[in-house]
Formats: sequence, C-alpha cells, structure tokens
Amino acid sequence: MVGGGQLARMSLAPAAALDVELVVLAERPEDPAVRAGAGYELGSPDDADALLRLAARADVVTFDHELAPPEDLRRMAGSGVSMQPPPAAQLHAQDKLVQRARLGELGLPVPAWSEVASASEVEAFAEPHGWPVVLKTARGGYDGRGVWMLDGPEEAAATVGDLIRDGTDSRVLVEERVEIDRELAVLVARNAEGDAVVYPVVETVQRDGICHEVHAPAPIDEREAREAQALGMAIAEELRTTGMLAVELFATPDGLVVNELAMRPHNSGHLTIEGCITSQFENHLRTVLGWPPGRPELVAPAAVMVNVLGPEDGSDPASRREAALAVPGAHVHLYGKASRPGRKLGHVTALGGDIEDALSVAREAATRLAGGSVPTDSR
Amino acid sequence: MVGGGQLARMSLAPAAALDVELVVLAERPEDPAVRAGAGYELGSPDDADALLRLAARADVVTFDHELAPPEDLRRMAGSGVSMQPPPAAQLHAQDKLVQRARLGELGLPVPAWSEVASASEVEAFAEPHGWPVVLKTARGGYDGRGVWMLDGPEEAAATVGDLIRDGTDSRVLVEERVEIDRELAVLVARNAEGDAVVYPVVETVQRDGICHEVHAPAPIDEREAREAQALGMAIAEELRTTGMLAVELFATPDGLVVNELAMRPHNSGHLTIEGCITSQFENHLRTVLGWPPGRPELVAPAAVMVNVLGPEDGSDPASRREAALAVPGAHVHLYGKASRPGRKLGHVTALGGDIEDALSVAREAATRLAGGSVPTDSR
Repeated sequence: MVGGGQLARMSLAPAAALDVELVVLAERPEDPAVRAGAGYELGSPDDADALLRLAARADVVTFDHELAPPEDLRRMAGSGVSMQPPPAAQLHAQDKLVQRARLGELGLPVPAWSEVASASEVEAFAEPHGWPVVLKTARGGYDGRGVWMLDGPEEAAATVGDLIRDGTDSRVLVEERVEIDRELAVLVARNAEGDAVVYPVVETVQRDGICHEVHAPAPIDEREAREAQALGMAIAEELRTTGMLAVELFATPDGLVVNELAMRPHNSGHLTIEGCITSQFENHLRTVLGWPPGRPELVAPAAVMVNVLGPEDGSDPASRREAALAVPGAHVHLYGKASRPGRKLGHVTALGGDIEDALSVAREAATRLAGGSVPTDSR
Repeated sequence: MVGGGQLARMSLAPAAALDVELVVLAERPEDPAVRAGAGYELGSPDDADALLRLAARADVVTFDHELAPPEDLRRMAGSGVSMQPPPAAQLHAQDKLVQRARLGELGLPVPAWSEVASASEVEAFAEPHGWPVVLKTARGGYDGRGVWMLDGPEEAAATVGDLIRDGTDSRVLVEERVEIDRELAVLVARNAEGDAVVYPVVETVQRDGICHEVHAPAPIDEREAREAQALGMAIAEELRTTGMLAVELFATPDGLVVNELAMRPHNSGHLTIEGCITSQFENHLRTVLGWPPGRPELVAPAAVMVNVLGPEDGSDPASRREAALAVPGAHVHLYGKASRPGRKLGHVTALGGDIEDALSVAREAATRLAGGSVPTDSR
C-alpha cells in the first residue's frame, strides 16, 4: 500500500483476518500504519525509486492516498506488478480536469466547469454562471486545500496571481457554485472482474472543508438513494475502478452532482467498520486482490461517525481515552498521530435505532476525546 | 501479552484502535501475533527470565494462555509490573484442584471431585459415584489433552500408571461424569475496580474435546441464561479476575455445573468480533488497562462461529480464501499458522436472523476453507 496513514492502519485488521501481508510505503517510521505493525519501505510517494522498491516486495500495489505522481505510477505498472486501481483509473481521482472531462463525456452530472489560465478567463466563466465561482487546482488538493471560493474579479485576480507566482505545478479549473442542500457520499467496492457492491448512501457534514460527521443512512428518500447508488456503480464500471471508490456528491435543487472521487478507503466509510457487514477496509483488500466483495449492508438502523481533530491547545486525545470509553456504545479509533490543531487524529463510531440516538453517543465520546473543545453540530 | 498465538493476533485490531502498544512474548518469530505485526520478545512462557524481559517493556502484563508457571508469575509480579489478571486469580485457571476447591468453598456448582494419587483412590471415588469417571491433570491440559474418561478399574490402573511413569509434574484429580444436556459458556469482562459486563450465554459444540462451533445466544430459557450470567459474574467477583473470564459450563438435568475457567479471550468468544457491540479482544484490553468495559450485547438476533481445523491432507485453508469469501455474509479469520491436521487455523463467523440462518453461512464458508473435508454437524 502506497502510504502509511490511518487508512493503511485501519487496513491491518482485515489484512490479519484474511492472512494478507500488508507492506506500506511510509514517509516516516512514526506513520500510523507502521506504529500499528505494518511492514514498510521508507520513502516519499513522489520518489519513483521508492515506489519501485515497494513494487518489488508486492504481488499487488494499492493506495491509501492519491499523491503519487501519475507518471511514476505508469512507470511502476511497467515493472509488471499488479496495480489496483490501475493508473489509468486512478488518474480520475488525481486530476480534476481529467475527471470532469470524462464524467461529462459519460453524461454524468457535474457542475459547469472550465480550465482557466488567467483571472480574465475566470471572469469570462463567471459572466454566464455568476459569482461566486469555485477555483480548484487540478491536482494535489484535499481536505479543503487547493479550493477557493471567489466572490468577484478582484479575488480572482489575486488568487490566480498567487497561484502563478507560487509556481503551482497543477493546471487550474473554475466551477459554478452549486446550491447545496446536503452533501452525500456513496462507496463502491469493485474487483477487476467487475464484481461490485455499493454501500448505503451516507450524508457527510463538512466544516471548513473537512469532513466532520458522517450519518448512515443519509436522510434522503428511497428514489434519491437509489439514484446515488446507481451513479456510484456507473462511475466504478465506466472508469474500471478496483478497490474502494468513494463518490462525493452534492444534493442540489436540480438533483445530484458529482463533487470529488477517491479510489481508496475514505473518511465517509469509517463507520463501515462496526456499522456494516463488511468494512470498507476489508472490501478494499478483497477487491484489489481480485476476491469477491463482501456484503455492504448496515447492521443497525443507523450508524454515525464523528471525527476527532487535534484540539487547539495541542493536547492529545489519547490522554482522554478512559473518559471516552465510559460512553456506552462508543467505538473509539485513534490513529497514533502526534496532536496538532485541526489534524485528523481519530474518530468515534456509534450505532443506534436512529441517527439522533447514534449521534448523541458518538458526539459525546468525540467531545470527551477532544477535551470538550469541539463544538457539536446543533442539528 | 504472554503468548503470541491467535488470541494475541486478534487483540491487535483493538490495540491499534485504542492506540495501545501490544508487545508479546512469542516462542517463535512465526507466531501468529508476530506475523501480524506485534512487537515481541522471544522466549518460552516457562522461562522466568523471558517473562522478566517482557515485564521490563510493559506497563501492564496480560496473557493469551495460562501456561506460564504460577511460581514464575509470582516472581514477575514481584518486579513491580501490573499483572492482569493477578497471579492469585489466574491460578484458578491454571490449576484445576485449586479451582475446584475454591468454587466448592464458595458454594458454586462443580461436579463431585477428589484429588487422587493412585488407581485404588480412583476406584474408591468410583464406588459411590459410579463408572465411568473423568481423570484430569490439575495443570497443563487443554483442548481435550490432560483429560481421560475411565470406564473401570483396569483403565484407571493403566492411565494412572502411565501418568506416574511419564513423571507428570501435575497432581491429578478424578471427577464424576455428569450427564450433559448441552455445553455452555459465559464471558465476563472485569477491571480491577470491579466494573464488569457479562456477554450473552453461548452454546459450545465440542468434537473430540475441541470446540467446533459456538452459537449465540444459547438456545436455553431466559431463567437458565440469567443463572449462567449470574454464575459468571459471581466467579469474576469472588476470584477478583481482570480482563476476560470465560466460564465453561455443563447444562445437566440437575442444573448448571462449572467445567473449566479461562482468564483471557476465549474460543467461545470469537464471534464477539462481529457479533457483539464490543469484542472480547477489545474488552480484554480495556479491562486489563483499568478502563471501562464496553457494551457486550449482540448486534443481531443470532451469531455463530465455526472453527477451521487443519485438514487431514495437510493443505492450507488460506489457499481457499477466495471460495470462502464468495459465501455472502461469512466473516473469515485466518491465524497465519502452518497447516497441520486438527490444528486450529482459523474460524468463520456469521450473523443472522436465527441460529440456523447464521450456521448455514458459517458452515459453508468453513467447509470451503477446509477443502470440503470437515463434516458439518447435522443439527
């Protein structure tokens, strides 16, 4: 697995259960997966030689992020190792221009968009679509980074100017701002033979561009849920993804539109560990290895996840484990990362008879872990 | 953790989730927990120096078996490390004479028993209780080893004679053979402050002295289930156990009697990984660390486990993973052990609307793993 973060760390449990040896490409021996016992190669995901060292130890290479340069991934594939997802598929999760163009060709719903190279091109796009518009780097953004909301020409000039001055190695696109009723995500596990399962649609609650909560099932009607699941399955099939595919969606007054894709286990699926028959981490391993995916259904009427971010005071949530575990029904997951304000350090999952039941448990435990400093959503 | 077998291996997932560093005393680098990434000291559990090396690296010492000599455990405790369960409690799981005497003192139900040192003492015991009788070594037996069913004086003479000739370092006891309607197990998680939870009572199906299947909940009436749970809680409280306590019970026409105790995660609790809100492996870690135990309730109406034993042809069940994973709803666990006929190599868990539903899934997957050579129970 390229990357040794929390996604790799949470992959270790199903790897052990299935007797699969998981070796990660880690940047540091302190990376979460290495601390939890993964075998590892040390190296950066943008070091082509490190990728080849990992490939030499592996039967199948997969990923816990999409940061390895597409060119290096193609070279890695040339070494003969099985890459899952294949570089041609993963490119759609790495490059937003490639993704938007391809989804548009397929007739799948995306916001209006255009590649831009100057502030005047942003203004030209805003002419028919109206301000504000959303500026994105084609590559490298995540958790709200690489995305700007531009209110008018002055902001466009400043932001595009900054990007050019900073020498971004990424092309840039502009998109209309869509009216968002809610944010959804749908997860698909698919193997190279095309065996695929789709998980129940979840609602994601973002704060400052970072996923804060996930609620399953999403509080939407059956028709919209089926439409979202069909969209996820269509993207997996058309892009020939393997492993987990996460499709982030906006529910708008005009219907669903695709926001982002990820081809790996995803924050919106952490609740599948306890909440679904087969976790996304197990299904990622199963499907990248060419094995059948497991059943994705929820095991309770509702499951929710609340992320634990590093508190502003720099304290370590692990020091408050005992208090969090005293909340009945809270499933605590810590990633073994050094505490920094705003950093994703863990999460709490809870199951319940309904979303509110489960939320009251998960929020209480997450708040205790964060030292009481994380405001809870009032919904 | 003293021991690096499958129980330690399955403890790694909750250890990672709770950010607890698990270091095992392993006999070999190929031991299941080490293969799955546990830190380790190499050494035998009956090597007092190895125990002290482990203690030097640990804040808390716990166990995946009860094979370390009680004398060495007392010495280990003298080093100042926190031992959970404490040696005085664990002795009741290590020495059947100590256990029988103590449970009897407490007025808890055990079969009639007597320590014996000769065949004539066995005959004297059989006089009032009738043949057959059950002969057991006080220490060291497990999975049917160290237990003999004696049909009459000739067998008693031969077996006791063999034991003396083999120079067993264990004292010996004889017990009445009770009439067994079914075998049950009840699991308790308890911390040193006395916070305790009791799991739903399970039925265990033994074959040749080895646990073959576990069914939860046990098909017994509510009154008997409450009695079994109360018995488990009473033993945990009276013996001051910490971590998991497994109480194996016989349901007889005259009521419940205690068969064996184990103070560690137990084969009868493997189904708690997917079947209960909190797994026995997580609750063992939580309670030996002094943290609150998590909720023990089942997450489905029924959960069952079927063990995967090494097939007679010596083939490796791991080579048949893909076929087993094609059984919808089967949770496959492999321990990474070399295949030998009859060896516990893994297990399969399934949840369902009732025991029969779940059994059909788990037995099918377990049979596929074993290469179709394991007969399924016809019940």
